[in-house]
Amino acid sequence: MNEKPAKPSPSSSPLSEGLSVRDAQACILDKVTAIGTEDENIALERALGRVLAADVRADRDLPPRDVSAMDGYAARAADIADAPVTLKIVDDIQAGNSPRVTLQRGQCARIMTGAPVPDGADTVVRVEDTRPGQDGEVEILVPVKVATDIRRRAENMRQGEIVLAAGTAIGPGTVGALATAKQAAVTVHRQPRVAILSSGNELEALCEPFDPSKIPDANTYALMAQVQAQGIEPELLGIARDDPAELSGFLKRGLGHDLLLVSGGTSVGVHDHVRPTLAALGVSMHFWRVEMRPGHPLAFGTLGRSLVFCLPGNPVSSMVCFEQFVLPALRAMLGHRRLFRRTLTASLAHSIKSRPGRIEFMRVKLTRKASGIYEASSAGSQSSSDMLSMARADGLLIVPSASKELAAGETVRVQLLETGAYQDEAELGDES
Amino acid sequence: MNEKPAKPSPSSSPLSEGLSVRDAQACILDKVTAIGTEDENIALERALGRVLAADVRADRDLPPRDVSAMDGYAARAADIADAPVTLKIVDDIQAGNSPRVTLQRGQCARIMTGAPVPDGADTVVRVEDTRPGQDGEVEILVPVKVATDIRRRAENMRQGEIVLAAGTAIGPGTVGALATAKQAAVTVHRQPRVAILSSGNELEALCEPFDPSKIPDANTYALMAQVQAQGIEPELLGIARDDPAELSGFLKRGLGHDLLLVSGGTSVGVHDHVRPTLAALGVSMHFWRVEMRPGHPLAFGTLGRSLVFCLPGNPVSSMVCFEQFVLPALRAMLGHRRLFRRTLTASLAHSIKSRPGRIEFMRVKLTRKASGIYEASSAGSQSSSDMLSMARADGLLIVPSASKELAAGETVRVQLLETGAYQDEAELGDES
Repeated sequence: MNEKPAKPSPSSSPLSEGLSVRDAQACILDKVTAIGTEDENIALERALGRVLAADVRADRDLPPRDVSAMDGYAARAADIADAPVTLKIVDDIQAGNSPRVTLQRGQCARIMTGAPVPDGADTVVRVEDTRPGQDGEVEILVPVKVATDIRRRAENMRQGEIVLAAGTAIGPGTVGALATAKQAAVTVHRQPRVAILSSGNELEALCEPFDPSKIPDANTYALMAQVQAQGIEPELLGIARDDPAELSGFLKRGLGHDLLLVSGGTSVGVHDHVRPTLAALGVSMHFWRVEMRPGHPLAFGTLGRSLVFCLPGNPVSSMVCFEQFVLPALRAMLGHRRLFRRTLTASLAHSIKSRPGRIEFMRVKLTRKASGIYEASSAGSQSSSDMLSMARADGLLIVPSASKELAAGETVRVQLLETGAYQDEAELGDES
Repeated sequence: MNEKPAKPSPSSSPLSEGLSVRDAQACILDKVTAIGTEDENIALERALGRVLAADVRADRDLPPRDVSAMDGYAARAADIADAPVTLKIVDDIQAGNSPRVTLQRGQCARIMTGAPVPDGADTVVRVEDTRPGQDGEVEILVPVKVATDIRRRAENMRQGEIVLAAGTAIGPGTVGALATAKQAAVTVHRQPRVAILSSGNELEALCEPFDPSKIPDANTYALMAQVQAQGIEPELLGIARDDPAELSGFLKRGLGHDLLLVSGGTSVGVHDHVRPTLAALGVSMHFWRVEMRPGHPLAFGTLGRSLVFCLPGNPVSSMVCFEQFVLPALRAMLGHRRLFRRTLTASLAHSIKSRPGRIEFMRVKLTRKASGIYEASSAGSQSSSDMLSMARADGLLIVPSASKELAAGETVRVQLLETGAYQDEAELGDES
């Protein structure tokens, strides 16, 4: 009588349906956070694109002492206040050498960039501000203030201090900084192991001969490339036919990975076995269907530490869903803080009609106008089966869910795709 | 008396000095074009980031015939003009199957996305616009116009037509399109072989023990990572000491590659042997010194098909020179048309003082303001020895050569670095 209703178990709770993109992303990232990340130790040569899992400290002061920032002459500023003056060269200090002499009045030392400044010197005169004098002498042409072109000891790094914190994404500059801190090996978040499976009787594998009644399996390879672009080599499981036993075998194998991507077979059609088969294998499904175009029939589930995405069968829908959901999940698993593609604002080249109700991702080309503003124009057919316009696209234009029409010239937001990271012109501006 | 002066040979012609960045880039790209590119055939699994060297044609019409764009029912539009109506289900057509029946009046066929539309049908009703009827019947809830949700034969690709032209950069969408065209192997421009050499007695190799009088060799690894980011694994030659014979041996080995990057040892100091040693090896030097900051002492030469860049010894200068000169050369050698980093406009967070006369590249962080505009702020010390601010930077702000001061709020242009390609927030806009 007094019994409270039993709290529904995760598996019996109703499946969320029709989530917004934002809520679906939050649901996915919440699961990734719960899983956490593991660490591994790798050589610096393999570190690009990974994320530091431990703080890195400087092993020394850098520079190790006061050094010259230029090739020239270490001198005493007081001696050259009335330049031009002639000084006697008493030493020749190269980078990596130690000075042998303390400078006295009227003396200087030839010094190379990075070489230690000798005792007695308090400034450096650049070689272009000097003229060779008689044997063993140099003419200083201009006066130079105290402390000019000297890099102070520990100016760049101080021994024992953290120079790169855990969580730092490793780009080329980071690799350089890691080398500076003498990190021949680094502790990073482990890469997730990823498996990719296509499903559907209509699919013709890349290795299979031409069959006029079938369509080529593009999803396996498009998803492979999207994963590869994150530095991860996925395992390609192949194509599961619409047979529950075969599908179950493939899915079981895929669930041995950290991340399983299945494309096709998740919509409402009677022949779609993927979701029920995953459920039978113990996968908790967290949502299916997201209010977006293209890409509506997306499903997401977990089994222990493994994530499963059921992506649409249409190749463009599958790629767009990867961009919005799998990419941030993959990057979170890699330990990244920046999970999303860079967006930029652009001006619409032409009007766009859209059906309100769902956020829409439109394939666009970007061109720079004379005003310095980007102009976004359709990359071609927006059909979710047209891979060619996806191949041509620089980015995905975000059409808000409430929009019926965006007018030419309107300011829009564009997610930069992989292929949009470079441009034709250097655009250095009005440099002469 | 009447003799014309001998035309100077390339080696005796005066070396261009103090070029603008633009002229230096043009000089380099001119040499790359003269060298041309070679082709190779590789597996689709290895194609990401490469450039097609041959046109790719469709091997079939795609779709191979008129197919359904949705899961639902193929029907005759005239039959359902007065919907709701009930139709008899006479077939069940899955993707990859052939229809068995020609639809008659009052009939329909259950049809899956991608399945061929049967003869007699002229439209498709989505499953969500239907309700299961009595055994073998379905209720169509809404009228649907002719040709709705039907993808026409060859709408995406037509057999024999060029679908991807030579010169196309291979991103994930291109990989998908190549799979669609059944290209298990593709002809691409060959990757250049790249060698990296550091020079200087002051350098301590990554594998060497700590020596307080030396500085760690960061350039080898920063340049390595910049090359790796283009998908190329460079050969690391190590460190050449300031000894002409040793240096000559290293340079000779490096010149066996398509591209040799040497850092350090190219300024005007008396201990800099790199340029004379290269000249002795037969390298034609085309320019040295570019009017930029950081990175002034840059030199560029060629020997046959090999390019040589002498980059500054300061790690940040070396990386910035890579971005402006080596990156476009590498990408041109790979066959790319887009040679330069994507730039975007930003608003300056604070004023910047600069010495006029040289274009300047300033390390900046980018943050998005509520207005949707990016704000650029200094990534830290702009000293050319400070690798940490390079590691933190999202981009390089272009300070025009004529500028003395840029005011806070001014609109500036920023080259996006590798690490600037992602962001914290999805920024989907005001989606509910």
